[in-house]
Amino acid sequence: MKRTLGTCYYPEHWPEEIWAEDAARMKAAGLTWIRIGEFSWSKLEPTPGDLHWDWLDRAIEALGAQGLRVVLGTPTATPPRWMAERHPDMFAVTAEGQPRGFGSRRHYCFSHKGYFAESQRITRLMAERYGANPHVAAWQTDNEYGCHDTVISYSDAAQTAFRAWLAEQFDGEIDALNEAWGNMFWSMEYRSFDEIGLPNLTVTEPNPAHVLAFRRFSSDQVVAFNRAQVEIIKAHSTAPISHNYMGRITDFDHFKLGEDLEIATWDSYPLGFLEDRVGASPEEQRAYARQGDPDFQALHHDLYRAVGRGRWWVMEQQPGPVNWAPYNPAPLPGMVRLWTWEAFAHGAEAVCYFRWRQAPFAQEQMHAGLLRPDSQDAPAMQEAMDVAAELGAAADVQPAQAPVAILFDYDADWAWSTQPHGAGLSYFQLILEHYKALRRAGQTIDILPPETRDFTGYKMILAPGMMHLPEPLKEALARSEAEVLYGPRSGARDGHFSIPTSPLPPALPGLDVTVARVESLRPDMPIALKGGGAARGYLEELEGTAEVVFETSEGAAVALRAGRQTYCGGWLDAEGLDRLIATVAQAAGLELRQMPEGVRTRRTATEVFWFNHSAEPVETEVGLLPPAGVKRIAL
Amino acid sequence: MKRTLGTCYYPEHWPEEIWAEDAARMKAAGLTWIRIGEFSWSKLEPTPGDLHWDWLDRAIEALGAQGLRVVLGTPTATPPRWMAERHPDMFAVTAEGQPRGFGSRRHYCFSHKGYFAESQRITRLMAERYGANPHVAAWQTDNEYGCHDTVISYSDAAQTAFRAWLAEQFDGEIDALNEAWGNMFWSMEYRSFDEIGLPNLTVTEPNPAHVLAFRRFSSDQVVAFNRAQVEIIKAHSTAPISHNYMGRITDFDHFKLGEDLEIATWDSYPLGFLEDRVGASPEEQRAYARQGDPDFQALHHDLYRAVGRGRWWVMEQQPGPVNWAPYNPAPLPGMVRLWTWEAFAHGAEAVCYFRWRQAPFAQEQMHAGLLRPDSQDAPAMQEAMDVAAELGAAADVQPAQAPVAILFDYDADWAWSTQPHGAGLSYFQLILEHYKALRRAGQTIDILPPETRDFTGYKMILAPGMMHLPEPLKEALARSEAEVLYGPRSGARDGHFSIPTSPLPPALPGLDVTVARVESLRPDMPIALKGGGAARGYLEELEGTAEVVFETSEGAAVALRAGRQTYCGGWLDAEGLDRLIATVAQAAGLELRQMPEGVRTRRTATEVFWFNHSAEPVETEVGLLPPAGVKRIAL
Amino acid sequence: MKRTLGTCYYPEHWPEEIWAEDAARMKAAGLTWIRIGEFSWSKLEPTPGDLHWDWLDRAIEALGAQGLRVVLGTPTATPPRWMAERHPDMFAVTAEGQPRGFGSRRHYCFSHKGYFAESQRITRLMAERYGANPHVAAWQTDNEYGCHDTVISYSDAAQTAFRAWLAEQFDGEIDALNEAWGNMFWSMEYRSFDEIGLPNLTVTEPNPAHVLAFRRFSSDQVVAFNRAQVEIIKAHSTAPISHNYMGRITDFDHFKLGEDLEIATWDSYPLGFLEDRVGASPEEQRAYARQGDPDFQALHHDLYRAVGRGRWWVMEQQPGPVNWAPYNPAPLPGMVRLWTWEAFAHGAEAVCYFRWRQAPFAQEQMHAGLLRPDSQDAPAMQEAMDVAAELGAAADVQPAQAPVAILFDYDADWAWSTQPHGAGLSYFQLILEHYKALRRAGQTIDILPPETRDFTGYKMILAPGMMHLPEPLKEALARSEAEVLYGPRSGARDGHFSIPTSPLPPALPGLDVTVARVESLRPDMPIALKGGGAARGYLEELEGTAEVVFETSEGAAVALRAGRQTYCGGWLDAEGLDRLIATVAQAAGLELRQMPEGVRTRRTATEVFWFNHSAEPVETEVGLLPPAGVKRIAL
Ligand SMILES: [Zn+2]
Ligand SMILES: [Zn+2]
Ligand SMILES: [Zn+2]
Repeated sequence: MKRTLGTCYYPEHWPEEIWAEDAARMKAAGLTWIRIGEFSWSKLEPTPGDLHWDWLDRAIEALGAQGLRVVLGTPTATPPRWMAERHPDMFAVTAEGQPRGFGSRRHYCFSHKGYFAESQRITRLMAERYGANPHVAAWQTDNEYGCHDTVISYSDAAQTAFRAWLAEQFDGEIDALNEAWGNMFWSMEYRSFDEIGLPNLTVTEPNPAHVLAFRRFSSDQVVAFNRAQVEIIKAHSTAPISHNYMGRITDFDHFKLGEDLEIATWDSYPLGFLEDRVGASPEEQRAYARQGDPDFQALHHDLYRAVGRGRWWVMEQQPGPVNWAPYNPAPLPGMVRLWTWEAFAHGAEAVCYFRWRQAPFAQEQMHAGLLRPDSQDAPAMQEAMDVAAELGAAADVQPAQAPVAILFDYDADWAWSTQPHGAGLSYFQLILEHYKALRRAGQTIDILPPETRDFTGYKMILAPGMMHLPEPLKEALARSEAEVLYGPRSGARDGHFSIPTSPLPPALPGLDVTVARVESLRPDMPIALKGGGAARGYLEELEGTAEVVFETSEGAAVALRAGRQTYCGGWLDAEGLDRLIATVAQAAGLELRQMPEGVRTRRTATEVFWFNHSAEPVETEVGLLPPAGVKRIAL
Repeated sequence: MKRTLGTCYYPEHWPEEIWAEDAARMKAAGLTWIRIGEFSWSKLEPTPGDLHWDWLDRAIEALGAQGLRVVLGTPTATPPRWMAERHPDMFAVTAEGQPRGFGSRRHYCFSHKGYFAESQRITRLMAERYGANPHVAAWQTDNEYGCHDTVISYSDAAQTAFRAWLAEQFDGEIDALNEAWGNMFWSMEYRSFDEIGLPNLTVTEPNPAHVLAFRRFSSDQVVAFNRAQVEIIKAHSTAPISHNYMGRITDFDHFKLGEDLEIATWDSYPLGFLEDRVGASPEEQRAYARQGDPDFQALHHDLYRAVGRGRWWVMEQQPGPVNWAPYNPAPLPGMVRLWTWEAFAHGAEAVCYFRWRQAPFAQEQMHAGLLRPDSQDAPAMQEAMDVAAELGAAADVQPAQAPVAILFDYDADWAWSTQPHGAGLSYFQLILEHYKALRRAGQTIDILPPETRDFTGYKMILAPGMMHLPEPLKEALARSEAEVLYGPRSGARDGHFSIPTSPLPPALPGLDVTVARVESLRPDMPIALKGGGAARGYLEELEGTAEVVFETSEGAAVALRAGRQTYCGGWLDAEGLDRLIATVAQAAGLELRQMPEGVRTRRTATEVFWFNHSAEPVETEVGLLPPAGVKRIAL
Repeated sequence: MKRTLGTCYYPEHWPEEIWAEDAARMKAAGLTWIRIGEFSWSKLEPTPGDLHWDWLDRAIEALGAQGLRVVLGTPTATPPRWMAERHPDMFAVTAEGQPRGFGSRRHYCFSHKGYFAESQRITRLMAERYGANPHVAAWQTDNEYGCHDTVISYSDAAQTAFRAWLAEQFDGEIDALNEAWGNMFWSMEYRSFDEIGLPNLTVTEPNPAHVLAFRRFSSDQVVAFNRAQVEIIKAHSTAPISHNYMGRITDFDHFKLGEDLEIATWDSYPLGFLEDRVGASPEEQRAYARQGDPDFQALHHDLYRAVGRGRWWVMEQQPGPVNWAPYNPAPLPGMVRLWTWEAFAHGAEAVCYFRWRQAPFAQEQMHAGLLRPDSQDAPAMQEAMDVAAELGAAADVQPAQAPVAILFDYDADWAWSTQPHGAGLSYFQLILEHYKALRRAGQTIDILPPETRDFTGYKMILAPGMMHLPEPLKEALARSEAEVLYGPRSGARDGHFSIPTSPLPPALPGLDVTVARVESLRPDMPIALKGGGAARGYLEELEGTAEVVFETSEGAAVALRAGRQTYCGGWLDAEGLDRLIATVAQAAGLELRQMPEGVRTRRTATEVFWFNHSAEPVETEVGLLPPAGVKRIAL
C-alpha cells in the first residue's frame, strides 16, 4: 500500500480568500489527506437550529478541487456556548464535586442524555449533508476522547447511569453486588442500586471494587457515545470512520471503542509526551528533549495497529514546538522526518501533521504548524516534503506479523491505578518497561488485545501485570506454542477485584506457583538478583514446585518456570528485565541483538528499518547513523 | 500479671461453618482475646430498627466455647448506608467546605446531634444484649477516633456547637472573648457568640486564638461522644471498657478521653508508621524499612500506659505488610515477636494481632493477617505462637515507675500546629526527639499527663515545648525533687494563646530567664553550639541572671540553669540534645549508657529487656544481639 | 529635603493610659510620622451606624501633642463582622469557586457594589471628621491592596462587572470581541456579552486573551475602588494621600492607581520576601537569610519612586523577625539601619517601622516591633535611633535622574503569567534579573512606567519582556538618544494577546529582526553562548539583516543590533546578561564597575552610597565595608 501524508486544517480560522492557495500549497507539498471541521460547531450552528453549511461546502470544494481527500470531523468536542444554556448540567464534574465549565473544550459529561442527543443531532445533520460528498474520504468522531481527564465524571448524570449499569451487571440483584464487592467489610452494604454513590469524596479510600466498577462504567459510556455517532454516519456514508486517540490516555478501552471504527488514529507529540507523560528520568528527559522517547511513540503505533485491526494512522504529528508541555523545545533537525518514517515502519497508512498554519490567536498560538503564522514555511515543511519525495521514490512499506507480542489490557491499567499498592506503580509503565526491554534487544513487536485467544505464529508472549486473567485466556496461552512470560500481579484478582482464594494467584494451568505474600518497596531499597539486576518497588514471595529460574541474592525465588510458561513475581529493573527476557527468548528460539543507546530497529515484510533517536551519530551494525538518521535495508 | 495475646476477628466476613475451626485454631495458637463486632452495624441492623443479633450471639458462643475472651466493639465507626438517608447532614466537612461522604468509614461529624443519638441507641441495644454475656470480657468504643483526619469538622453542626462551647467558656460574655483573643486586631470583634464562624476559608490566616479554641472544642466533642457510649455500657456491664487509639493521632486529648475508660489500647503498625508519619529521614526510613522506627512504638506504649493509668494493650499489632502506607514492605523475620515483647516490656497487658485472616476483598485486601486469605498460616503466625510459648515458660513481666518522665500535652501539640512559627516544626516531633535522646542513653521512661502535680520518685522531668504552662504546674515542678528541663517554647503562651507580658515567658519560679526574641531558621542554617551540636529550625534569644550552661559558638546563651531547673531556648539537633540531657542527667544522678545504633533497652521491676531493631547483629554489653533480637535479663 | 522616620501605631490595641508615654518615647526616638487607624473599623463603628470617634480624637491628640504627624488610614481592609451580614455576598471568590470568608482581613471583592458604597461611606465620615485636623498630615487608603491574592475574584459581582467592562472595551460589539480573541478557535464564540463567563473552572486552559482581559479588568477594579476613596478625601483635606503597596504584588497596575495619589509608599520586609517571593536559589537564601536579597528592595524603591512620580516612602519597614514567612530569622545587626539608609539613597522621603510595639495577641503576635510586648526596647530601636541621629548630623540626600532605566509594565507581567510558555518563566523575574545585572555593574537605575514617551537624559534603556509594545512607545524608543535593549518576548503580542502576523514580532522600527520560532527549555539544558554564558529556559530563533552581536556556540543568532537598538531573543543567565549589558553599555558610553558579592552602590545628586549586604566584611574600592556596612561619599 502507498503510504500517504496529510495535515489538519481549519478553514474557519482563515479568510476564505486564501483557501484555494492553501490547498494548492498542500498539494504541492505532497499531502493527500486534510482533516477539517472537528472544532467548528459554533460556525456551523451559531444559534440553535440555524445551520450554516455553506462555508464548509466551499472549504471542502476548495480542497477537493486540488484532489485532496477530506477527513471530516464531527464537532462534538466543542459544543458552542448556547449549548450550556440548553443543558446547564451537561458538564463533567471533578472528583471534588466541581462542574467543569465552558471556555475551552471537551466540556461535556458522557453520561448526560441531553448532550448525547445533541451529539447525535449534529452528527446526523453533518452525515446527511456530506455522507455522499466525493471529497469526504474518511470521517473522524469527536476529538481525543479522554484528553484533559474527561472520561471520569462525578456528575448526577453519571451517578444515575452508573446505578443502571450496575443493575444490569448484577441482573438487578443487589446482594450479588454486595457479595462480589465484599461490602460487609466496613458495613458498606447497599439495600438497592439506588443507594450506590460514586466513589469520590469518601473519608478514606473507597472499596477498590467500587472504584474499578466505576472505571469500567466510565469507559463504557465513552464507547456508547462514540457508537451512537458511528451508527448515524454509517447510515449516510461508506467512507471509513476513525477517531484520533491521544497518547497515554488509558481511561477508556480503546479496543472496545475501536471495534466500531474502521481506522484507529492517534496524535503523536513526542516532545510534549516526554515532558509530561512518559515517566522518564530527568537524565533521559534531558538527553531526548529534542527527539522524544525512543520507544513511547513506537508502543503507541503498535497499540493502534491492534486497535485498528491493522488499519491505523497518525492523525496529528508534532511538527515543531508545542504549547502545552511544561517545556516546549524545538525538535532536532530531522526528527519530523524520522517520526514520520517510524510510523510507516510500524504500518501507518497515513501521517498527518498538526497543523497546517500556526494560529496567531487563542489557546494554541504557541503550537507550531507546517506554516508559520505569517504563512512562511516553518522548518517542518521541508522535512514533510522530503518524506513525500522519498515515499514516491521507494518501495512501499509492507508490515508483517511480529514474532513477539505483548498483551495490553486497559482493565488492568484501571486495576493498578485503583490499587497501585506502592506509590508510583502503574500498569502502563510496566508495559512500557517490558516494551523497552524488547526494543533494546532489537525486537519487532505486536501489541495484542486481552480478548486474543489465537496466538498462532508468536514465539514469545508477554502478559505482565494483567491483574484479571480470564480462564479462557489462561488456557489459550497455556495451549499456545509460544513462550509466555507472566507477572508481576498477573491473575492477582478475580473479575470483581477480590483475591482468588482457592487457589491463591496466579493459578496458571501447568505452572505450579503461588503468590504467598506481596510487598511494595521504597525506591531506595532494590532487592538484588543473583546474576545481576534487581527487583524494585514491588516483590512477591513465591511458592511452588516449578523450577526457579531467577532468585534474589539471598535465594528467594523471583521467577519460576514450567513448560513454556514463566512467572516473575517482581518488578525488575532494566538489567533484570533484559536478563529475564533473554532467558525466555532463548527458550523461544528468538535471536536478540542489543541496540546501541538511542538506536531502534523494526522489521517489516520486506525490509528492516533503523532509526537513530539520539542527538549524536551512532555506529551500528548497519553503519554510522547520523542524529535523527533513518535507514531502510531491503531483506 | 500474666501477659496475653489476642487477635481481631470478623465472623461476618466468613461463612459460619468455619467459625468453630477458626476458634479452635486461635486457641491452639495460644490466643486469649478476640476483638469483634466493631464494623458490623449493617449486619446487625440491615434496615433501621430491624435488629439481627442471632449471628453475633452464635459468633460469641463459638469463641466462648473455646474459652476465648471477647472484646466487643460498638459499631459506630461504620454507620450503614441508610443512616445517611436519615441524617443527610451527618457528615464531617473539610476545611474547604466539602462534606465527606459514605463509602468507607468514620463518615460522621462528632457534633451532629442526630448521629450522636444513633450512636447511643445502637450502643444501648448492644449493651443490653451482651452486657451480661460471660464471654464478653471487655468492650471497645467505636474504632480509632481521629483516624483519617476525622476529629476536625467544619460542618454547620460543629459551628452551632462551637458557639455554645465558647459561650460556656466565656460565661456568655462576648467581650471577654474579644479581649482574650485580641479581636480588636484587624477589627475581628464579635457582637455575640452567634457571629463566630469556624476558622476556615479565611483570606489569610485566622486568629490563632480562634484556631486553638476550635481545636480544643473539637477534642471535647470526641470526649463527649465517647463518654455517652461509656455511660450506657457501664449501665449494663461490669467488663472494662477500652478504645483503640491510633498512632500519632493527636487531634483530641487522649488523657481526657481516657479518664472515662478502664483500659487504653492502641494500634501499632511500625512499618506503616515509618513510611507515613514518623518523620524520619530517608536514610532512616531505608535502614528501618522492615523493622520500623526504634522509638516510635515505645513512645506510644509509654503514652498509653499513662492514658490508661497503668492499664493498656496493643489492640492491633501489625503482623505483615499493610495496605495503606506509600510503600508496604514485609517485616524482617523476628520483628513481630520483637514488637510483641517490646509492648510487654512497657507494661502491655495484652497484644492482639490485626487481623486473624487476611480479607480477600474490599479496602484492606492487601493487609496481612495471621492467616493468608486461603487460611494457610502467614509468617506472623509462627512468631505469635513463639511468643505464646515464651510467655508460658518465663516469669511474668512486672513494670515499675521509671526514673525519667516526659510531660506530654495534647494542647501543646495543637498550639504548635496552630502556630509552628517555622515550617515543619511540630510539638510531637520535639517530644519524639527528646524521647529518642533518652532512649539512646539507655533510659526507661514514663510519659506523664499535663495535669500531673505529684512528681515523687522521678529524678528527671522533661517539659519541652509545652506552650501553656499553668501556674500550678510550674509550681509543682519547681517544688519537685527532680531535675526539670524546659524549653523551647515552654510557657510561651497564656491560656488563650497570647504572649504573657508581665513578665515575658517563660516566667518560671526560681529560674531567672526571659525569652527576649524568637526566630525560626531555615533547615540549612544550623547555629553551632560551643562544645558540639547545633540549634536547628528554632532559636530564642535568652536574657536573665541564671547560669548559662549552653551557648552558641558565638557566645549567645542557649540554656540557662538555676536550682534544679534548666531552660533551653533552642531546638537542638541529636548531638546537642544528647549533650544537654547528659548535663541534666548528671545533676540528677542518673546513669546514662549509650546504646549502639538500633539497640534499645528497658528496665522493669524484675528484669532488663534488650531489643535489636537493626537489620544486622549488634555487639552490646549484654552480648551479641541478632537482628530482631530480644534479650531478657533478670535483675 | 530632610528625610524622616516614623512608625505604625495601634492605639486601639493598648490601654489609653499609655498613649501619652508612647508618644513621648516616639518623639524621643526621633520619629516624625505615626500611621494609625487602618484596621480600626470595628472600634470606630462597632454596630452599623453607631460611630465612636472619641477614642481616635484622643489618640490623634496624644500624638499631636508631641509634635508627631499622623498618617491616617481608611479602615476598609478590615470590614467588621456585621458587614458580612449586611452584604453576605461581599467576599471574593477563589478560582475553585469558594468564597473567602470573615476572620482575617481583606475579605471583600472589589467588584461588590454594596461594599464599594460602604467603603465610600466610612471614608467620607472619616474625611469629614479629620480632614481639617492639624495633626493629620497625610492619608493612607485601605492597606496593601492585593496582599493575600485579593485582586482576582471569581464572584458573581466580578462576572457582572467584567461583562460591562468588556462591552465598554468593545463598544458593545460582541463580534469585535470574538474576532479579537480568536473565539472561532474551539467554537468559543459568544452571541452577547452576557454569555461571557470568568476564565476559571474550564476543562483545559481558557483562551489567553480571555484571561488577560480578566486580569486587566481586575486591575481596573482596584483602581476604581481606590479612586472613590481619594475623591472623597480630597473633598475634605489638603493633606497628601498615599497607599502602602506590598512587595511583588503585581496583580494590579500600580502606575494607574498611583496617578490618583500624591505619594507612593510600600512595605519592605527583606527577610520575609527572601523566603517567600524573591525566587532566589537555596544557596542565596541561605547566604542572605539575615540580610535579605541585595537587590529586591532596591528594585521596589526605584519602582515606587516612579509610581509616586518622585514622592515615595517606606511605610512599613521590617524591624526584626516577622511572623508570616516559612522561616523567620532575626536580621543581622545593622541591617535595619542599612535598609533605612538604602531607602533614603533611593529617594525615600520617610521610612516608618512596622510596628511600634509587638502585639502579644492575634495573627501578628510573632511580628517584632521597635518595642517588645513588655514595652522594653527591641534591638531595632537602637538602630532606628542611630539613623535618626545620623540624619540630623549629615547633609540631606538629594536624588537625581539615573543614567539607566528599565521599563516596568504590569500588563506584561499578566501576559507572562497568562502564558509563561515554559514552567517558571515570569516577567517580574526577568526584570529582577536585568536589574540585578545592572546593580552588579554598579549602576544607579530608574524604573519607568510603560506610558513613558520622553526618554531625555537616559543613556541606556532596557525593555525586556514587554509583550505588548504599543507603536508610539516603539517609535519614542527608536527616536531616543539612548541605547535600547529589547527582548526576549518584547512586542510578541498585539493588544488582545494575538501574535502580530504582518510582520511577525518584534517589528521594531529601524531594527530588522524577526522571531521565526520560539522554544522553551528545560532548566537542565542551557544553550551555551559563544564567549561565555548561556540562554536558559527560553530561546527564540531570530532572522533578519541586523548585525548579530550574540550567538550560540553553534552559531545561531541570539541578539541582533542596528543603530542604537538591540534585540535579544533568549533568557540569558547571569554571565550572559552581564556580557550583553556590558556590550550595550559600552555603546552607550556608560562606565560599569563590577561590585564584589553582596556590595551595592547608588549615586545621588550629591554623594555616592555604598552598602554591604553580605554577612562578612568586604574590601571595596572605597575601603573595607563591615557586614551591614553603609558608606556615604560626597561627590
Ligand atoms: Zn444564521
Ligand atoms: Zn431483618
Ligand atoms: Zn456605641
